[in-house]
Formats: sequence, C-alpha cells, structure tokens
Amino acid sequence: MTLLDETCARISPIDAEAAAQTQRLLDFKTKPRRSLGRLEEMACRIAAIRGTATPPMPRKAIVVMAADHGVAEEGVSAYPPEVTAQMLLNFARGGAAINVLARRAGADVVVVDMGVKVPLPSNESIRRLRLGPETANFTRGPAMSREAARQAMEIGIQLAEELVREGVTLLGIGDMGIANTTASSALAAAYTGTSAEDVTGRGTGIDDSTYARKLDVVRRGLTLHPLDPRDPLDTLARLGGFEIAGLAGVVLGGAAEKVPVVLDGFITSVAALAAVRLAPLAACYLVASHRSVEKGHRLVLEVLGARPLLDLELRLGEGTGAALAMGLVDAALLILHEMATFENAGVTDSGA
Amino acid sequence: MTLLDETCARISPIDAEAAAQTQRLLDFKTKPRRSLGRLEEMACRIAAIRGTATPPMPRKAIVVMAADHGVAEEGVSAYPPEVTAQMLLNFARGGAAINVLARRAGADVVVVDMGVKVPLPSNESIRRLRLGPETANFTRGPAMSREAARQAMEIGIQLAEELVREGVTLLGIGDMGIANTTASSALAAAYTGTSAEDVTGRGTGIDDSTYARKLDVVRRGLTLHPLDPRDPLDTLARLGGFEIAGLAGVVLGGAAEKVPVVLDGFITSVAALAAVRLAPLAACYLVASHRSVEKGHRLVLEVLGARPLLDLELRLGEGTGAALAMGLVDAALLILHEMATFENAGVTDSGA
Repeated sequence: MTLLDETCARISPIDAEAAAQTQRLLDFKTKPRRSLGRLEEMACRIAAIRGTATPPMPRKAIVVMAADHGVAEEGVSAYPPEVTAQMLLNFARGGAAINVLARRAGADVVVVDMGVKVPLPSNESIRRLRLGPETANFTRGPAMSREAARQAMEIGIQLAEELVREGVTLLGIGDMGIANTTASSALAAAYTGTSAEDVTGRGTGIDDSTYARKLDVVRRGLTLHPLDPRDPLDTLARLGGFEIAGLAGVVLGGAAEKVPVVLDGFITSVAALAAVRLAPLAACYLVASHRSVEKGHRLVLEVLGARPLLDLELRLGEGTGAALAMGLVDAALLILHEMATFENAGVTDSGA
Repeated sequence: MTLLDETCARISPIDAEAAAQTQRLLDFKTKPRRSLGRLEEMACRIAAIRGTATPPMPRKAIVVMAADHGVAEEGVSAYPPEVTAQMLLNFARGGAAINVLARRAGADVVVVDMGVKVPLPSNESIRRLRLGPETANFTRGPAMSREAARQAMEIGIQLAEELVREGVTLLGIGDMGIANTTASSALAAAYTGTSAEDVTGRGTGIDDSTYARKLDVVRRGLTLHPLDPRDPLDTLARLGGFEIAGLAGVVLGGAAEKVPVVLDGFITSVAALAAVRLAPLAACYLVASHRSVEKGHRLVLEVLGARPLLDLELRLGEGTGAALAMGLVDAALLILHEMATFENAGVTDSGA
C-alpha cells in the first residue's frame, strides 16, 4: 500500500458531537443565540475537525508551493516563467504579500520549490522538494507521469505530517506558478464535468487575445487526454502541476491528521478538489477562505461544499486569502474561550 | 452657531490625489496590479480620508454607546430593558463579544452610558454622558426633544474630538440598547422614504407575534409624526435614541477630524445615515464593516454608498463587526508599508 493510499484510508469523519457541544457553550455566552453567525459556525467546525469542544488557539502554518508549467510556452500568462523563481526568492526574503499577511496572522510561511524552471541559489528559507524543472506541456502529452503525481502528493502529505508533528494545528495552503490557472482550469473542467468556458478566467490579468489563447489551450488539453472520472490521480497527472499535486497532498495529510486546511483561491481549491476526488471525507477538513474573482473558483467551491468567509475580489494566490481568513478563525475561537457566560456576567438570558 | 452646525460645516471632501498616489505605490508592489482587490481599495480610501498617501498604522478606538428606549414598553424585543445595563457592566468588565474582538484588533473600547434605565454603580470604565433614564415611547410622542437630540450629537462630537486629540486615527462605533432596532427601523424608513416592512427585521431574534407587534409599532411611529425630509435632526429627535444620536455625533466628529469611522451593523449605519443627512460629505469618511442579517441594513448601506467588507451573518451589534473589519484595514495598510516593490525584489513587472 502506498503512502497516498494509506493516507486516504486514514481520513475519518469529523466529530459532530464536539461541534454540538461547542454550540451549547456558545449559547451560554452573553449574546443572543447564534448572533455571531458564521464565526460561531467556524468555532463549531474547528471543534468537529479537532475532535474537542474547546480547541485551543491554533498554531498556524501556510504551505506555499511553487512550480513551473510547460503549458506556459503556449503564451497563456501575462508574466514570463522566470517570475515563479523570482517570487520564490521574494517569499524567502519576506517581501511578498503572503509574508506580510501571514506575519499579521501569526502564521509561519513554509516555501516549497516543487519544480521551478530557473535554478535557484540554495536558500534556507526554501524547501527543495522538486520533481523536475517544470511539468510538460499538457497540450502535447501528460503534464507528468502518474508516478510523479503520486510522488508530489506524498511530498505534500509528508510535509503536512511533519508540520503537525511540530505542533501546527491550522494549515493554510498557497500557490505560485506562472500558468497555473491554466492547469487549474483544465483540472476544474475535468473534475466537475463542465466546459472550459465555465472555469477559465483571466488569472493574474490577461488581455482578450491571451484569454482566447488560454481558453483554446484548456480545450485542447481536455480533448487530447482520455479522462476517466474514476481515476482522479490520472487526471491530475495529465493536466496538473507539481505544486497543485503537492498541495492536494497537504490537504490529505492535514485531513488524516485531523487538522483544518484553509484554502486560498482557485488553484488551491482545485488542488483540494483533486484531494477530495481521491478521498471524499477530506472535504470535511477544508475551510474556504475567500471567493476570488477567478471565474472557476465559485464553481469549485460549490462542488467542494465549501462556503467562503470573505469576498474581497482577491486574485493573487500565494495563500493571501488563507492568511486573512486565519484571523477570522482566531476570532471565532477567542469568542469561545474569552467571552463571559450569562451566568458569570449576571446578564438575563431570554433564550433568544 | 452651535457645535453641531460648526462641526457639519468643518467636514471637507476627502483627498482623491492622496488615494491616487497610494494606488501608484501599490502598483509597484510585487503582485499583479489590483490583485489584492478590496484591500487595495481600502488602503486608498484610508489615504484619501487621512490626506496622505502613506497613512501610518492606525491607533484604534471603538465607541460603544448604550441607552434605553421608551418604545421597549410596547414589547418589541426578546429581552427586558434591564439587559442594557447588565450588558454595559459586562462591557466594563471585558467579558462581552466586543471586548474579545476589540482586544484582538488592538482597539480600545470606550463604553458610554447615554441614558440607561437601571441605575448603574459608578464604574471607571463607563463614561456617564447620559441625557436621562431612557427616551420616550415614540408611538405616543417624540422620543426626545430637538434640543436633547442636538445635545446627544454634540456629546458624540466632543468624544470623537477627545479621542482624536489622544491620538486615535481609526474610530469604530457600536451600540447597545434593548429595542434600538425598532427605533432604527423607524429612522431608516423615514430617512430613505421606504416602508416599515422594508426596513424592519427581527433584531436579536424575535418570534412571529413579537415581529408583527414591532412592525405595527414602527408603522404607528411613522404615521404619528409629521416628518420633514428637510429637517433630519427633527426626525432623529422624534424616532431616535440617545445612543443613536450620540453615534451620529461620533461620525460627524470623526469626519470633521479626518478620521475614518468604521460602522458596525444596522443601528450604527442608521446613526451614520442621520449624520449624512445633516452633512452629506460625512459619507466619505465611513468604512462599512459588514452586512448584517438585519433586514434594513442592506438598504441603509446602499443609500450611504458604503460597500461592506464582510458578510458573516452577524446580528449582535456592540461594534463587533467594526472590530473584525479593523483587522482588514490593518492588513491593507501593512501591504502598503511592508511589501517589496518589483524593483527592490528583482521581480519582472509585466505591467499586468
């Protein structure tokens, strides 16, 4: 049995009784019942995932995986592939948006080179877990072998397990990879059975002719490959990317360890969908942070049954939305831990 | 000239040039242009209000005003009026939701008794700026005199000025007052020219028969009083509350001092609408934090031209939504201050 199979088998249902107990505790707090809406839901959700009615304040890490995509040669992005490596160094130096927002959220950023094209200088802030310089162009053949897709997922699983061993109790995921919205669009269409048009957006901001090219590339990928809905790993290998497969592994590893995984935008949500196609119970461990402006994101979140906390028109990736949402998770748990009850505050409880 | 008139006259347009300069600074940061969506808008908005392209990280205070309402005797709330005073003591002891969320946001909570019915023990954490034990029942006559409404607003103005003198650069507002959604519904209908049905919701959570009574009370208030759209202060006196008028004053005081005022839910938004009816430019200084589940809130925010950052199904009040949104304001300004530029990070800028 592979680590991947083993991990999928290890994912169990979440603890509905813990959630119900958390709701009862919240109902004693000095506020009308459920008046903190989705914050209360979030506290209950974290309780169900962690299997305890009063989960401690979380220790947080955001795993940002980067890789290059052979399909970038089709001219589908506004940026050249060199930017993937440049941004990785920017993450390592702490100057990117994810660094700023993760610091604010009190989350560590774990930067992973899953397969970046431009050689990077050795850097202690970048984990080299790379599977190659880039995936192959999926309009000409599979992006990677089935074995590589499995390896990438297992890298993610092992990283999640390592972080959990070190004490992390709330994981976030983020992505970097020029052309990775193209790969994600193809995967989203394949996994949801919708058309390329329905899930292909403008990524980091491309013009009309680039968009037309991108849409054509996604269509060609979907036509070229024999896609079998019963074989989600094969689909991931054919159309995915090293970072997407790695992040899918982080989702599975987190779920197996009963740690919530906070999604970011479209790419991370597609990675989560790949994970859920392999292990449906993994869906229970997801926290949707935000709804991005990227076209396919709404659909993928719906299919995941994940309702985002924020709608701030973000379209950056890197885990930025996950970092913002972690602040709301903290708020939800602080309410549970720090608010007075009707009884100890001497406030009349009408039961409303 | 009264302090109220003087303050309204002092409110000036915000600085569009500062906002444009902030956007240029953000465009140099290592991310696709505008890819942080509403966070970037927020940074520009704060810049325009503060009149500088690089506003420092704010010092924050949330003013929570409480008062009782004569109209509570009509049986429009799920809670008895005693709860207003009990909750004020809870605020003073730090056990309420607003205390928890304000601590997390790094905001001081300024608790104000604007007219609470049950006598409170002297408490150094509660500012006694009260105008009486409660307003009169607006289904029988004006809730307060025109003079009292002006005084309440001036109390709010003076408090905002005091906080700004002490260094506060970001104000939030919150409310507490059993039956204050009833007063706010009547005011919202009067100020927007809509029907009682359109703006009357279930407040902290009332049953069908209480809701029918509440709707009838709002209708009777709107019928009884001769309401003149050219005299918003008179409308506020007839249908409002001491805390609502006080919070309207905080909005005017903040706007006059060029300090952004973060709204909370329905009551604070109605208070802001009263302020804006007196001084239309005050609208530029508002930051809408969230859209609550209270029925009239959406309409009032639309009339204010204020787009909320969050939609978390909150219906608590106290300033809880304002506290949560302050975290996003911080995030927006941290992006401006801490992110690397394309040039200093050595990242290729495609101009996308």
